[in-house]
Amino acid sequence: MKSSHQPTILVVNDDGITAPGIKALMDVMRELGRVVVVAPDSPQSGMGHAITIGSPLRLDKVDIYEGIESYRCSGTPVDCVKLAVNKIFKGKKPDLCVSGINHGLNNSINILYSGTMSAAVEGAIESIPSIGFSLDDYRLQADFSHCLKYVREIAQQVLQNGLPPATLLNVNFPATPHIKGIKICRQANAKWAEEFDERMDPHRRPYYWLTGVFQLNDTGEETDVWALEHQYVSVVPVQFDMTAHHAIPILNNWKFNI
Amino acid sequence: MKSSHQPTILVVNDDGITAPGIKALMDVMRELGRVVVVAPDSPQSGMGHAITIGSPLRLDKVDIYEGIESYRCSGTPVDCVKLAVNKIFKGKKPDLCVSGINHGLNNSINILYSGTMSAAVEGAIESIPSIGFSLDDYRLQADFSHCLKYVREIAQQVLQNGLPPATLLNVNFPATPHIKGIKICRQANAKWAEEFDERMDPHRRPYYWLTGVFQLNDTGEETDVWALEHQYVSVVPVQFDMTAHHAIPILNNWKFNI
Repeated sequence: MKSSHQPTILVVNDDGITAPGIKALMDVMRELGRVVVVAPDSPQSGMGHAITIGSPLRLDKVDIYEGIESYRCSGTPVDCVKLAVNKIFKGKKPDLCVSGINHGLNNSINILYSGTMSAAVEGAIESIPSIGFSLDDYRLQADFSHCLKYVREIAQQVLQNGLPPATLLNVNFPATPHIKGIKICRQANAKWAEEFDERMDPHRRPYYWLTGVFQLNDTGEETDVWALEHQYVSVVPVQFDMTAHHAIPILNNWKFNI
Repeated sequence: MKSSHQPTILVVNDDGITAPGIKALMDVMRELGRVVVVAPDSPQSGMGHAITIGSPLRLDKVDIYEGIESYRCSGTPVDCVKLAVNKIFKGKKPDLCVSGINHGLNNSINILYSGTMSAAVEGAIESIPSIGFSLDDYRLQADFSHCLKYVREIAQQVLQNGLPPATLLNVNFPATPHIKGIKICRQANAKWAEEFDERMDPHRRPYYWLTGVFQLNDTGEETDVWALEHQYVSVVPVQFDMTAHHAIPILNNWKFNI
């Protein structure tokens, strides 16, 4: 990127266009270039890589953030990126796509469930350098101030260096303001052990709330979980080729009786 | 697996519990073991790895398929797997999780958007040997008959051999009954080029239907797209570690100015 070029930056999220996290993110990005915000009109946490195919979508320009071109979308985080590329940028792709800052961690296995990260993945599928940012604080009143200089620096590095083909970044912040630095990591091996909370409705029919306990099956010190527990910003390079290449020779040894 | 053991098989899908594709799948699986069906109460195509966290879930036993224990779920395909493991199997995991047969292909990049494949991914996260099956025919009246012997054989092989840790299978069928065989493949490099269909509602407000054109950026003959075009059943081993391991040394060379 030439320094004379003012980059265009698409800002998305999954907590909705009025979330404090997206405000924090756009306030950093407006220092770096021209910002366009396209975000869901309501919270979309846990939407993963969902897209809307069974119903139509709305996309409305809204005037809520002084000096920022903003759109609210009735769809999922991934829909937001698709609509932005096709209807707002119209083929002239932005120089950067940033998603977040999410209210809550998206480290390890959480990347699969996360609307924030799926929006960034969709940006990368569109060949836009993309980054998802998340903070270890689920509250609406979460304090993002200690993250901002890291958000700025990582975004600047991506604007300058680009990213390897078909990859993006998953950046997570500890809640503490006492950050020790940035660690490049791999995704920790972990899962959620579900614990559905069963209740009765007033008509005596059962219903369930999804809850769970994060179950770490990984003692590696090169993981995002380790980095966050030790007060580092975790940066995981992510790919969207889900092929288990190492398993191909194993399966080629199977004898199918057909 | 010892031959004296009757395996337990969880059958899920994303087209809903009344879809012909899940009926075809359970009819094969009942020949191989004890079948439990847990499927969405309505179509959930394109739901990706979405989970339901902002509202409660319903799970109701239904008596629709003779001799098969069946449940309809108000949530996403991934919710179905989580509820099955936690509320139906209660920790005694099934020997196999099969998802589909999807009405429509889930090859290449489609795995990310697919509820069918995300349900199978969730099965694999739960350490259950898991397979997603999909047919290249979107119609409700799709003919699955030519797929069934392959479904049976692949499921039997997985029951016998297991799968490498943290992997699952993505199996896609061409629509033709003239199948040449099974090919172990990698996910083709492709994407959807979106083309939103813009319309006006009766109140003169615009809305959009998501449509698109499948854009293949891959000439490899070892891909699932190639296999399907040449009348093979494609089998892609899939992993859910999304770390771009090859990009870690590149990022470690970046100098962050913080």
